Amino acid sequence: MEISIQTAGIIGAVASVLGLGFAWYQRRFVLSQDAGNERMQKIAGAVQRGAQAFLSRQYRAVAVFVTIVTIVLVILSTVPGTGMSAWTAVAFVCGALASGLAGYIGMYIAVRANVRTTQAASESLNRGLRVAFASGTVMSTVVVSLALIGISLLFILFTNQLAPHQAASALAGFGFGGTSIAIFARVGGGIYTKAADVGADLVGKTEAGIPEDDPRNPATIADNVGDNVGDVAGMGSDLFESYASSIIAAISLANLGAGLAADLQLAGQVFPLLIAAAGLLIGMGCTYLVKTQENATQEMLLGSLRRGVYTASVLIAVVIVVLGLALNLGWGVIIATLSGLLGGVLIGYFTEYYTADSYAPTKQLADSAVGGAGIVVIRGLALGMFSTVAPVLVVVIVTLLATAVGGLYGIAMAAVGMLATLSITLATDAYGPVADNAGGIAEMAELDESVRNRTDALDSLGNTTAATGKGYAIGSAAMTALALNAAFVSAIQGTMGEPFTVDVLDPRLITGLFMGGLLPFLFSSLAMLAVGNAAQKIVEEVRRQFREIPGIMEGKNEPDYEKCVAISTDSAIRQMIVPGLIAVLVPVVITVLAIVGRDNFLGTLVGRETLIGLLVGSLVTAFMLAVMMSNAGGAWDNAKKYIEAGHHGGKRSEAHKAAVIGDTVGDPFKDTAGPSLNILLKLIAIVSLVLAPLLATVPV
Amino acid sequence: MEISIQTAGIIGAVASVLGLGFAWYQRRFVLSQDAGNERMQKIAGAVQRGAQAFLSRQYRAVAVFVTIVTIVLVILSTVPGTGMSAWTAVAFVCGALASGLAGYIGMYIAVRANVRTTQAASESLNRGLRVAFASGTVMSTVVVSLALIGISLLFILFTNQLAPHQAASALAGFGFGGTSIAIFARVGGGIYTKAADVGADLVGKTEAGIPEDDPRNPATIADNVGDNVGDVAGMGSDLFESYASSIIAAISLANLGAGLAADLQLAGQVFPLLIAAAGLLIGMGCTYLVKTQENATQEMLLGSLRRGVYTASVLIAVVIVVLGLALNLGWGVIIATLSGLLGGVLIGYFTEYYTADSYAPTKQLADSAVGGAGIVVIRGLALGMFSTVAPVLVVVIVTLLATAVGGLYGIAMAAVGMLATLSITLATDAYGPVADNAGGIAEMAELDESVRNRTDALDSLGNTTAATGKGYAIGSAAMTALALNAAFVSAIQGTMGEPFTVDVLDPRLITGLFMGGLLPFLFSSLAMLAVGNAAQKIVEEVRRQFREIPGIMEGKNEPDYEKCVAISTDSAIRQMIVPGLIAVLVPVVITVLAIVGRDNFLGTLVGRETLIGLLVGSLVTAFMLAVMMSNAGGAWDNAKKYIEAGHHGGKRSEAHKAAVIGDTVGDPFKDTAGPSLNILLKLIAIVSLVLAPLLATVPV
Repeated sequence: MEISIQTAGIIGAVASVLGLGFAWYQRRFVLSQDAGNERMQKIAGAVQRGAQAFLSRQYRAVAVFVTIVTIVLVILSTVPGTGMSAWTAVAFVCGALASGLAGYIGMYIAVRANVRTTQAASESLNRGLRVAFASGTVMSTVVVSLALIGISLLFILFTNQLAPHQAASALAGFGFGGTSIAIFARVGGGIYTKAADVGADLVGKTEAGIPEDDPRNPATIADNVGDNVGDVAGMGSDLFESYASSIIAAISLANLGAGLAADLQLAGQVFPLLIAAAGLLIGMGCTYLVKTQENATQEMLLGSLRRGVYTASVLIAVVIVVLGLALNLGWGVIIATLSGLLGGVLIGYFTEYYTADSYAPTKQLADSAVGGAGIVVIRGLALGMFSTVAPVLVVVIVTLLATAVGGLYGIAMAAVGMLATLSITLATDAYGPVADNAGGIAEMAELDESVRNRTDALDSLGNTTAATGKGYAIGSAAMTALALNAAFVSAIQGTMGEPFTVDVLDPRLITGLFMGGLLPFLFSSLAMLAVGNAAQKIVEEVRRQFREIPGIMEGKNEPDYEKCVAISTDSAIRQMIVPGLIAVLVPVVITVLAIVGRDNFLGTLVGRETLIGLLVGSLVTAFMLAVMMSNAGGAWDNAKKYIEAGHHGGKRSEAHKAAVIGDTVGDPFKDTAGPSLNILLKLIAIVSLVLAPLLATVPV
Repeated sequence: MEISIQTAGIIGAVASVLGLGFAWYQRRFVLSQDAGNERMQKIAGAVQRGAQAFLSRQYRAVAVFVTIVTIVLVILSTVPGTGMSAWTAVAFVCGALASGLAGYIGMYIAVRANVRTTQAASESLNRGLRVAFASGTVMSTVVVSLALIGISLLFILFTNQLAPHQAASALAGFGFGGTSIAIFARVGGGIYTKAADVGADLVGKTEAGIPEDDPRNPATIADNVGDNVGDVAGMGSDLFESYASSIIAAISLANLGAGLAADLQLAGQVFPLLIAAAGLLIGMGCTYLVKTQENATQEMLLGSLRRGVYTASVLIAVVIVVLGLALNLGWGVIIATLSGLLGGVLIGYFTEYYTADSYAPTKQLADSAVGGAGIVVIRGLALGMFSTVAPVLVVVIVTLLATAVGGLYGIAMAAVGMLATLSITLATDAYGPVADNAGGIAEMAELDESVRNRTDALDSLGNTTAATGKGYAIGSAAMTALALNAAFVSAIQGTMGEPFTVDVLDPRLITGLFMGGLLPFLFSSLAMLAVGNAAQKIVEEVRRQFREIPGIMEGKNEPDYEKCVAISTDSAIRQMIVPGLIAVLVPVVITVLAIVGRDNFLGTLVGRETLIGLLVGSLVTAFMLAVMMSNAGGAWDNAKKYIEAGHHGGKRSEAHKAAVIGDTVGDPFKDTAGPSLNILLKLIAIVSLVLAPLLATVPV
């Protein structure tokens, strides 16, 4: 069977349009639900306004950045000899717009689904699950559809217009646009959500002794806004980018002829697009399998989500085999793709193992809380570090297997395979913050305890899927980055016309590795400091309000929620700039130095080898740190909840106090620094791929 | 000027004998001091017995390991075609014996100098400093002399007997022997010291409310033993190995002709030996500059140590220039060597900046303690991560500069330059635990407050030098590992007869990097868990004694110190095995797989490229983690002391409680996991160099 690029592009575009239609339909379903009583709507309205305000300020700030980069890309394309096409700039703008739109729509529906989930949960558990999950599917199908339609259309355009290595760079522009939004969304949203959370907890829970989400806490609205801007919008932009980049890398590698016979290059290019299109449709269909009955246990709730995800995985595996055979790509490519699919499931499983309180590691962490805060922090850090072993081995095995059977193209297809189920896995993930918010609204609106119990059940499920989702996001980011690196090197080789080898002792390679290894540490430290600073401001504001507004604690006067929202927004926007810019500028600066250093002494200090080192070094340490931080954070969170459920003395025991301190440390780990590292590792890879045409002209 | 290998070897050996004589003389000086009253001697005796018992158990365990490795090396040398010489096994045994002896002598003198320092401090501050510092010089000159004499003699032997790449492997055997002792000494000693410390603090300070080193605390003797077996013996073996390996790498690279013109190969081999010999003599002389006057401030005490170190640095710089010119090695090699010397000083400075409470970072960390334990832990971790920037940039700049002007040989000479002042820098470092112990004995023996004040001043100085020393140990370990890697690759190239290049996308290289990056995380997590487990046992024992032995708290009955010593010893010995073996076995397993995989499918999955990836990946992440852990731990410790000095409410304030939790987290960071990583990164490099002859026969 032979399928032309046009046909594949059209299939991808049609599937995307269907996906967008499905998202629209699900959006209508969510919005048609009862939004609850006046008080609930008032609370939800405040959350909506806060989220909206943050996102528009964030997007305005990022727009400046996007504009500058666009201008630079246009200028670069006009300089003779750079080999860069002006289409790169066009793709960049498209990617940025699509990623921003995906994040916006995800946030838009989440802040409306939360209150409707609360109301639905007051009727039945199943209805609550349906509404929250429908909101997740809106986001997931929008993310996947926008990425797929963008790539499909640009793909048709570029393969006609550009030489292979230029097309790779131009397509990468789309991914770069997506990442530019994602890095600021993840960092900014991550700072926002944890500053509000930590700030609210430190004064509210610890000092004033009022429960979480208590309406008397001035930071409680900001806390709920944070769930939406950090976990929803940030996660959406992040996975938009992994998804788009994995497909772009696979197409580019096939187009460049890396690891594929000449007569299979066309099939190699259409294969990832067709899998993506099939994955989108299958994922949409499988969302209908997610439902539960009243009085479902946690096991049953989780089972219903898993039924959807696992069915989708099996169906996509069948599609991969059938398509691979139909396109004559052979079993090597098929096995490589399947290994990625399986690897994603395994990484998700290991993440759950290390972070869920039904397994030994988190239980032991909770046990150690009896020994005090110091011990629980030491053990949590050790757990996080130890938990890197399994995901690294999965990535190592997938990489070795995929390349052994499918060459460099195999690595990219493994990444595509891992992300093929995104339209449903992301839905299970995006569902979490909605359920979390729904619980917050139930508490603030002082609804009946039975409602809160149901939203608690939904929220607890959300915590598990969030942990699995984070593992999946990190694993897929690493595979995507590897695929992008492969595309980058192939693009350089394509221009040079010879293999790109390096002396293993080249000091530029070694120092590049050191600087690459350093970046994630620097970046994480800035992100954590930002959370600390912003939380400190919230703490001071909440203390001030408790002191100055009379009758807050008696519920006579409402606190000034808006003020905390404004402070969180302000701090997050200001503090996202430096880490975001570092991530983008370091590879750019190295590239510029490598170009300037041609034929002079500088070239012995900085060269393409430095950039390769930077790519690989940052990939390795960002991956380790991201897994460690996410898992340690997840385990501390669940160890705290395990104690709250009545173990080791339950709430207010010494063990609980120690576990709360662990959780406070874990917050910026798992929701700010950890997830931002995903984007960091992809960002450097995609920037390099965009700049590949310039680098290809540097002599070795 | 031309100096033959024999002459250089003899000069090295003579300098070493002078060094050993000096050490003997200093030992007599220390032992001739008054050992104080009966009570002091009784306490010191308990510490001596505990340290002795631990070291002999440790050495017995390690002897098994050394025997097995020796047998394996002998067998390998008899298998035809491996190209490995039986001399490697001989050198291995010599290195292990020398390293073990150096650690033993350091411990022997430290546990005798402690009580004499207490007694001397009861007379005057200057006398206390003289005695403690003399004990440090015994250890430092023994470490340097034993390393130098071993290399000098083996060097004369091997260059006559063996081909260059075999000689490199055989000489590396000496370093490997040293590392084998060092890894177990550092890990075992590190677990011991922190388990006893954390255990003593958790029950004694926190639960029972008695001061540190209080004689009523059953774990207090174990705590003091820990200072000697961890900080003294562990540090000694560690730096023995860096020192020996840097010289070995430089000699091997010159012998292999890497980066040196053919007519300079001989000069290149004698240069590092002559610098080492000169450094030893200069360091010995400069120890006489370390003295102070009564009522000296902290500044003046630090100034007196610095006077010694800086004078030695300047004199050695002069020697480097003069020798380099005399041997006709040219300014490139000279500049490379000097860059290492300067880099060591800079890394020491940055370490002090991030960990001393006279600078902003630690002050801000102390400020954040007001926000509670969660915040102080987050900030400390962020500080540790941020503090990696400066040392990484120093290593990057030194590497680029040294290779640009001196080739691969330049890197090795930078490491030699960095370690040239070891005979005095290690003395300032080894002085710390003696002063710490002296304070403990003053407290336990209930001496006059004025004595304790003087020992506190000496101890506080020791904390600063310990922090600087740790930074220096990590920086020099990284440079040494780089030099060893260079020697390893050159040895392979020497056998292959062609440059060793790799495809930058070789999946074996990439997966090797991932696994290398993983190792330090795995290793650190095991070390921290071990401390947690061992501390837990001490906590239970101390609680039991408080409960079951009547009249402990009133001072009527003495606690059972021996029991805590026995528990610490037992736990540390048992728990050092797994991390130690992982560090040694992983590179061995990869090497074996690479050899087995010749000409078959396995070879596409594991090869020499995997080992290269493992080397570099572990180097990068071990370096980052080691710096992060050491500096975060040092900063937490000093932030706590800063608060204890009366800031933010002083002792027993909420801020102090938070800072104590930070310090508890920092303990296994800075004294167990962090320093052990130094050895991990060198270990993989040295094992590879030893096995290089086997690998050289694997086809690419």
